[in-house]
Amino acid sequence: MNRLSHLDSKGNARMVDVSGKKETVRTAVASGEITLSKEAFLKVKENAVEKGDVLTVAKIAGIQGAKRTYELIPLCHKIFLNHVDVTFQMNEKRRAIAIEATTKATSKTGAEMEALTAVSLAALTIYDMVKAVDRGMIISEIKLLRKSGGKSGVWERQ
Amino acid sequence: MNRLSHLDSKGNARMVDVSGKKETVRTAVASGEITLSKEAFLKVKENAVEKGDVLTVAKIAGIQGAKRTYELIPLCHKIFLNHVDVTFQMNEKRRAIAIEATTKATSKTGAEMEALTAVSLAALTIYDMVKAVDRGMIISEIKLLRKSGGKSGVWERQ
Amino acid sequence: MNRLSHLDSKGNARMVDVSGKKETVRTAVASGEITLSKEAFLKVKENAVEKGDVLTVAKIAGIQGAKRTYELIPLCHKIFLNHVDVTFQMNEKRRAIAIEATTKATSKTGAEMEALTAVSLAALTIYDMVKAVDRGMIISEIKLLRKSGGKSGVWERQ
Amino acid sequence: MNRLSHLDSKGNARMVDVSGKKETVRTAVASGEITLSKEAFLKVKENAVEKGDVLTVAKIAGIQGAKRTYELIPLCHKIFLNHVDVTFQMNEKRRAIAIEATTKATSKTGAEMEALTAVSLAALTIYDMVKAVDRGMIISEIKLLRKSGGKSGVWERQ
Amino acid sequence: MNRLSHLDSKGNARMVDVSGKKETVRTAVASGEITLSKEAFLKVKENAVEKGDVLTVAKIAGIQGAKRTYELIPLCHKIFLNHVDVTFQMNEKRRAIAIEATTKATSKTGAEMEALTAVSLAALTIYDMVKAVDRGMIISEIKLLRKSGGKSGVWERQ
Amino acid sequence: MNRLSHLDSKGNARMVDVSGKKETVRTAVASGEITLSKEAFLKVKENAVEKGDVLTVAKIAGIQGAKRTYELIPLCHKIFLNHVDVTFQMNEKRRAIAIEATTKATSKTGAEMEALTAVSLAALTIYDMVKAVDRGMIISEIKLLRKSGGKSGVWERQ
Repeated sequence: MNRLSHLDSKGNARMVDVSGKKETVRTAVASGEITLSKEAFLKVKENAVEKGDVLTVAKIAGIQGAKRTYELIPLCHKIFLNHVDVTFQMNEKRRAIAIEATTKATSKTGAEMEALTAVSLAALTIYDMVKAVDRGMIISEIKLLRKSGGKSGVWERQ
Repeated sequence: MNRLSHLDSKGNARMVDVSGKKETVRTAVASGEITLSKEAFLKVKENAVEKGDVLTVAKIAGIQGAKRTYELIPLCHKIFLNHVDVTFQMNEKRRAIAIEATTKATSKTGAEMEALTAVSLAALTIYDMVKAVDRGMIISEIKLLRKSGGKSGVWERQ
Repeated sequence: MNRLSHLDSKGNARMVDVSGKKETVRTAVASGEITLSKEAFLKVKENAVEKGDVLTVAKIAGIQGAKRTYELIPLCHKIFLNHVDVTFQMNEKRRAIAIEATTKATSKTGAEMEALTAVSLAALTIYDMVKAVDRGMIISEIKLLRKSGGKSGVWERQ
Repeated sequence: MNRLSHLDSKGNARMVDVSGKKETVRTAVASGEITLSKEAFLKVKENAVEKGDVLTVAKIAGIQGAKRTYELIPLCHKIFLNHVDVTFQMNEKRRAIAIEATTKATSKTGAEMEALTAVSLAALTIYDMVKAVDRGMIISEIKLLRKSGGKSGVWERQ
Repeated sequence: MNRLSHLDSKGNARMVDVSGKKETVRTAVASGEITLSKEAFLKVKENAVEKGDVLTVAKIAGIQGAKRTYELIPLCHKIFLNHVDVTFQMNEKRRAIAIEATTKATSKTGAEMEALTAVSLAALTIYDMVKAVDRGMIISEIKLLRKSGGKSGVWERQ
Repeated sequence: MNRLSHLDSKGNARMVDVSGKKETVRTAVASGEITLSKEAFLKVKENAVEKGDVLTVAKIAGIQGAKRTYELIPLCHKIFLNHVDVTFQMNEKRRAIAIEATTKATSKTGAEMEALTAVSLAALTIYDMVKAVDRGMIISEIKLLRKSGGKSGVWERQ
């Protein structure tokens, strides 16, 4: 049975020591979604078609959040990100906006937390921008889809 | 039909002007959950009973995130928070950790985004601390439960 | 002859003590511009018409910068901003993008630095987004246009 | 005609992917100036000679701003700076303070934005420290003078 | 026997709820010192007389740290500081630099942590600037001297 | 006699240029202590045995502070830390909590400031969490114990 890497043998919180790890190319893809009321969904959709502002602001928030992940997640390492991307898909039937974030780094630790943080902050920003119309939105299914690089290699969601 | 408050009449992003709003007592309660593998759930549970570290670190991350919400959500106002609390409940049957955040402020704008951000960062921190055991965890159901104060008064999830 | 408020009688740096000042409504308007090559100007203009992304990202950077001014300007007070707005005008003849930022606060100190910081960061963001096409852009004429509120009342540029 | 690097083919904002770029030594030099009233210029000059505080504080603000550029400019990469320097020259005839910032990095992306940000924040800090004497100051001519390193090599302002 | 305010009845970390507290004027004075080798002390002293830069940079670091205390101390409230001052005294006999920080706020919570943080960061900055000459410096006696305001009123060190 | 590395030949503040330095493995160990009243010491001790929360929160604050050292210490370089650890020892006789921080990095500059900052912020956090019981606590003996790596090699406190 594996150990929780952020706890020492006595159960105290700790940061993982990555001194012995190699700098390799790391990628991660994470996704999530936010479900809206019919009215709110239409508002964003309209806007998305004409101007893209709700989703542009959410994208910026996601990218900036990824860059600051090490400040937000206490035991996370600071890494240099080669790339962050955040994309959106409007699913009309389910009145949901699907969010996907991709991160790339040349680093000693993976970039999974950065991708998950980007998705979370993009979703929260959509909530913030739409909440005057719908306070009932739900953010769900924030999860890792795929990661590559490092000693553990490729991991893919089944 | 209400307008999206963060877009002007041409659909451009904008921050809401709260100059005319009164400082009133605002509260918000938000929740969310993270679902773990059986192994990961047990690890956290054990630790929670003996030491509480995974959840203590997640709590700290949630509180700190709430205080910095205005930096993370681009069009969100800076507010002075009177209180932030983040609590956890371990649901063994569903192998889920339920997260609840409460925020209070005396301010011109609500404290909903702060509560939702606290939940999100607490969940991400649990993910970070447990990911060596389980990369498949899913963060879900991040939503507002209740808010009070301000012109729109009390809102409660049905 | 007035004294420099941020230096004490011996010339040492100091933060102004605003304990005795009243919280009043403060506003400030600042402007600036960035001059581009013909090619770069057209690129932004095209984009501005179709998508608005260069200017949307610049606007977000300006608003976020305004909120964090107290972190960037060492002797500046933290204030609660009621509102920040950043707008742009494309001047084809001069191949310049004019930037204007408005800030409002209910506070003991003015919001001038916040408006000037918003203009500066919006201009720097335009530079960043366009620099692959034109490294020669020049940011100029960053200045206060107007401020109101506080003991010194209204000030307007001649 | 070159493309705007921070927009994708549909005009959406994007961060440039630098995964394929090599870490090389990069330098950048940027400059700018702030023009003051006669009274304000003399105040700073006196102080500069005796104590240097206005300019020391501005220098610190410039250096710190350079280190945090990736937080302030949304699509900018985080880089490790080997060096940042900010210098000032008092031009009595024009009542202007010329600001020059030099940045050096061993990185996959250039250090131009860091130099431009250092100049901008130094100028804003001078404004903040002198504004009790002169609100009319103007910040101008913020521009790149030279950059070296990376695939595009040396660029110099004509 | 008083309770630790940042722990709940089960010993879990918590932020104090200040909703019921009044905004009153709060002040705090904290001090500390850093002891240097003879050589290092002389270097700073020389510089202090001629230029003041080591101490000016340390002062700036202290003031900026005070403003960001709520980010650094996990369970600390965000407050709006009316004033922060950091002063230094060179004690030649003991080869020590005494540091004193004063903070003022109109707030629901005290400004003690802000004063103590200002002293600590000023001391660390002196260490950083002098360490090429002396790595053996010791930072000591960081303590609260006095605080006023709030329900508990004046407290003074015996 | 060595020069202060952060001052140029005219005594102006400067950041050290590390362009010519090699990336090597660097470690640093720093320590400090906080002395408490008898009552406060017992409170923390009890809690430490049962729950560990005061010290867990202090540890998190120390680790996070280490990661953000370059933001807090004006002339300090940004580095990527491989590891930070903060540990505590309760000394009942002296009613003191000893704090030790270890940092590791693969970098062009040392990690001493990061270790010293971790100790300082852990101590300040203990103060914050215990101050309702004892305002008289004193933070002392913050110092470097050992550092290795870089051109100057190993340094150890006598």
